[in-house]
Amino acid sequence: MTALPEPPAQDRVRIRFDPDGARPREVRVPAGATLFDAASWNGIAVDSTCGGHGTCRKCRMRVVEGDVPVSRLDPRAFGPEELRAGWRLACRARAEQDLRVEVPPLVTRPKAATVGVGRQVILRPALQKRCLTLPEPSLADQRTDVERLRDALPDLELRVDLPAIRGLAAALRAADHTGDRAVTAVVVDDVLVDVEPGDTTARLFGIAFDLGTTTVVATLLDLATGTPVAVASRLNPQQSHGADVITRISATMTDPTALDRLTALAHEGLDRLTAEVCADGGVDRREVYEIAVAGNATMTHLALGLDPEPLGVAPFVMASRSFDGLTAADLGVRVHPRARAYVFPALGAYVGGDIVAGALASGMDRDRRIRLFIDIGTNCEILLAAGDRLLATAAPAGPAFEGAAIRCGMRAAPGAVEGVKISDDDVVLQVIGDVEPAGLAGSGLVDAVAAMVAAGLVDASGRLVAPDAPGVPPGLATRLRQVGQERVFVLHFRGHDPDGDPADALYLSQRDIRELQFAKAAISTGWQLLLEEQGLTAADVTQVLLAGSFGSYLAPTAAVRIGLVPEVALLRIVSAGNVAGEGAKMALLSVRERAAAQALLEEVHYVELSDRADFNDRFVERLAFPV
Amino acid sequence: MTALPEPPAQDRVRIRFDPDGARPREVRVPAGATLFDAASWNGIAVDSTCGGHGTCRKCRMRVVEGDVPVSRLDPRAFGPEELRAGWRLACRARAEQDLRVEVPPLVTRPKAATVGVGRQVILRPALQKRCLTLPEPSLADQRTDVERLRDALPDLELRVDLPAIRGLAAALRAADHTGDRAVTAVVVDDVLVDVEPGDTTARLFGIAFDLGTTTVVATLLDLATGTPVAVASRLNPQQSHGADVITRISATMTDPTALDRLTALAHEGLDRLTAEVCADGGVDRREVYEIAVAGNATMTHLALGLDPEPLGVAPFVMASRSFDGLTAADLGVRVHPRARAYVFPALGAYVGGDIVAGALASGMDRDRRIRLFIDIGTNCEILLAAGDRLLATAAPAGPAFEGAAIRCGMRAAPGAVEGVKISDDDVVLQVIGDVEPAGLAGSGLVDAVAAMVAAGLVDASGRLVAPDAPGVPPGLATRLRQVGQERVFVLHFRGHDPDGDPADALYLSQRDIRELQFAKAAISTGWQLLLEEQGLTAADVTQVLLAGSFGSYLAPTAAVRIGLVPEVALLRIVSAGNVAGEGAKMALLSVRERAAAQALLEEVHYVELSDRADFNDRFVERLAFPV
Repeated sequence: MTALPEPPAQDRVRIRFDPDGARPREVRVPAGATLFDAASWNGIAVDSTCGGHGTCRKCRMRVVEGDVPVSRLDPRAFGPEELRAGWRLACRARAEQDLRVEVPPLVTRPKAATVGVGRQVILRPALQKRCLTLPEPSLADQRTDVERLRDALPDLELRVDLPAIRGLAAALRAADHTGDRAVTAVVVDDVLVDVEPGDTTARLFGIAFDLGTTTVVATLLDLATGTPVAVASRLNPQQSHGADVITRISATMTDPTALDRLTALAHEGLDRLTAEVCADGGVDRREVYEIAVAGNATMTHLALGLDPEPLGVAPFVMASRSFDGLTAADLGVRVHPRARAYVFPALGAYVGGDIVAGALASGMDRDRRIRLFIDIGTNCEILLAAGDRLLATAAPAGPAFEGAAIRCGMRAAPGAVEGVKISDDDVVLQVIGDVEPAGLAGSGLVDAVAAMVAAGLVDASGRLVAPDAPGVPPGLATRLRQVGQERVFVLHFRGHDPDGDPADALYLSQRDIRELQFAKAAISTGWQLLLEEQGLTAADVTQVLLAGSFGSYLAPTAAVRIGLVPEVALLRIVSAGNVAGEGAKMALLSVRERAAAQALLEEVHYVELSDRADFNDRFVERLAFPV
Repeated sequence: MTALPEPPAQDRVRIRFDPDGARPREVRVPAGATLFDAASWNGIAVDSTCGGHGTCRKCRMRVVEGDVPVSRLDPRAFGPEELRAGWRLACRARAEQDLRVEVPPLVTRPKAATVGVGRQVILRPALQKRCLTLPEPSLADQRTDVERLRDALPDLELRVDLPAIRGLAAALRAADHTGDRAVTAVVVDDVLVDVEPGDTTARLFGIAFDLGTTTVVATLLDLATGTPVAVASRLNPQQSHGADVITRISATMTDPTALDRLTALAHEGLDRLTAEVCADGGVDRREVYEIAVAGNATMTHLALGLDPEPLGVAPFVMASRSFDGLTAADLGVRVHPRARAYVFPALGAYVGGDIVAGALASGMDRDRRIRLFIDIGTNCEILLAAGDRLLATAAPAGPAFEGAAIRCGMRAAPGAVEGVKISDDDVVLQVIGDVEPAGLAGSGLVDAVAAMVAAGLVDASGRLVAPDAPGVPPGLATRLRQVGQERVFVLHFRGHDPDGDPADALYLSQRDIRELQFAKAAISTGWQLLLEEQGLTAADVTQVLLAGSFGSYLAPTAAVRIGLVPEVALLRIVSAGNVAGEGAKMALLSVRERAAAQALLEEVHYVELSDRADFNDRFVERLAFPV
């Protein structure tokens, strides 16, 4: 293996944004993220017309606490006085330490929004409002309400259902009574959602949901301007029925009432977030006329009340790839009673709508470079874009990264170790929150094993060395202990007491390392086979996008060190953030992006791994750690 | 006025049908109706491929009680033995007396059904079932459930919504479990309603509703064969909120909760009839996948929960002419939960879907003769077909024909006088049921006034003559009495006691006669103006169709005598029966008929009477009785 460049500082940093006119928001992002990305990921509106490429010079922010170096482009955008006062272009300002940042008001109501991995989306929402003044009926003009409306909207081929007719009739009567004959038609695609009395064109909102197995995130978007208004997230309430998709599918197979309960829990999760973002953004629920949802196939099936059993057993068949004519009510989201819902279509049972959304947000279909998109989780989805070809597969990584099969594993929550450094004979842990370490998060697990491999504590085959092995410094040797019959490496002794019982300590066991080996071998076999399918090798890859919340927290150095991702220059490994959520936002912002998602679905070639003869051979080859 | 031919016997006759394998049914029809029509109107299946024109000789029935003369065609269909045994062709057998008739089983499962005024409908329902055996999924064939279904139905461009996907997934799982992989797709137009396990193609039903202001009629149709299975009728439960549309519209204007109650009552009425016909026909409610509804604009608006106020006040504007994408549930009809609903489109606020359905059933668009279609009620709808032209109008007849504004008026129920004859110096009443006369039905009112005009008791101007006027026989003179300040003609003294107080008697007052005059003047002004619009006169009319239940009971002689209909040969005045209900059946039987109804809507030219300068002049001219 070639020498790796010096790893960047792997800490997460806190940024407190003070957006003009909105409440302050504190966010945690990987060190080195740009202020532009940090703001976008967290639903804070930033002026931009170039999409974060440093050309429009509109993404001005002022760093008021902490320091961000002046970038090459900053002097073209700001005078010396401004630079001294902390003004920076957000797309060039990397947060390497905790910061407080003022976000100025939007100068131009953008006609385009920046989302995803620097994707610039021209505003063209499926949702639109049209203010109309319909001619008053008379004996000479007895057109019906519906005919009157259709004639006033000759460019639309409206579908008008019964509730819409009721809304239209009521609005026209109200218009008659007030004397102001203006009404506003609310349209999503070709569906008349409602007609409201008066001119309400300034108020139209949508909510983008990232419906994850672990976490659900909602972003309230102002679709008149394309700007985010509020963001909220919470754990998926289905957790009570299992941490991963397989457990939840199993629950429905053993208990006939479980499906209904899981559906109700999904609805509850989405609806509570709705309440939260609407309250936060000062938006009435009835002003939300469309939602977009990106989720994996199981989450989507459960939320729609569809039996997920066929997704869990071979040959892994979905009920449907896509869902037309859905309403927000179908997903339990109480917004406008006839609000529509767009649910991202899926490629396959294990490459779901979340991946399609992520691929859209990452521009996997628009970039001719050779790029790998890896969403790490219990099920790991992998996309390879190579020129005109798009390949996808799913690798069964198992629950190691979610902390489930790891003895001291835990979710990324306060007390979780998310980073591990081993220097000389000491171990330094990075812990979420100001508390004693309680367990090991997925990113901490990868970090720990990578550091142990680098320190010679784990050999290439994945075996923990003996305490008396040559070259093990004494400070580390005392951490190599036995718990029961098994060798472990203690990361943290309770109360810092190295004489305590190692069974009470926070440790990594030989079996834990094997779990991680299996997981990383499955994933690397996945991208390896996709590359081979195209006649490529790891050296051809120009970019690796790590998606999902786990991917965002994974240290690229460690990922390369254990062989989880191809060995490429670290700067080519990009944490793409919550790309599924970004894709959902794009679907609300533009019908063109929806069409692109649909096209993506048709372009992608799915490679099924589970019936490949060479999978197991490759898997065994990929078990070893590169040393 | 020219001399009228001898009036036919005006009685109604009772026919007891004994259909093979079904329960006997007793019906009441105007004397002279054919057994074919009597059976069709009452939902009794009759073999026929010619539609009652005497050519197919399939409509065989056996008269077992009462007598029907042998027609010219009968000897061609039956041997002498059969004729002696009572066998007749139903389309040529006129019921002039009470009969008992055996109906043989259907010989051929017809591919066409006979409905309406001798209309032959080729079976082509919007509802269809397709039995399919879908290939089992495998790792090599991971198509989704929906894709698998679509690929098996390449001739259909199916719309598949979320509940249909649930049904499909469940049926496929059930098919997997039973080993029999057959499933049946239920489709209405291009909508996938459901997928059922196994082969259920033999069971598919629809219900046709005639949603009248007074009476609601339901016919359960077997759409695999086109045959009626059961018929039921009941009073519209909205009666409690007023007998006519205007009263019900007013109720919604004064009481904000009335609309919801009227909608609930409409739903209740339709749903109870559904329960009745399903029980009667041995059909599970879930086997009914489509309903069709013909009703006037007000009934339709109320049933769909649409504010009817704009229908009741100038300029009389409907919310919509037609309603797409309706389900039976939208109309409160609990059949298959995703059953669709077809609601007849309306021409205008006062020429509703019932008239469009009636025009369809009467073939008003297919007959190049000059024909008038008159549906008499509080609101009288009139259509004129003349070659390629179709004109329509509505005349405000007022409630005289429903008995509402008539002192001794009542609905056609037991005790109602439905026929009146005056011979020499006596009055003979025909009463519904074997009870003492209690009031005067609409048809009795027309009969009574016609007879009084003929007997010289009412002069051309509509004035009751004095008891001592020249030529009044003594037996009738004693019936010309005073009640309060008003002259009346007593039709029936309580207890047959001519010395009793006339105020307690069943009588017709001067004011009643005026009410009838206004009503008939409005109606005859209507058809008069339509004829003039086309440059025609009453003499050009080749057929007058009297529609609706009232029209069926109206004696043609009397209608001509008072000038309600044009003065044509009596045989050209045809009682068309419940044509709205027949139209609803046709819509279930054939998508072509639906298309014809839609085309009719676009062809008809509506003539608004209420803003015509010459209406009042004509109205006054038409007040007089022709003597």
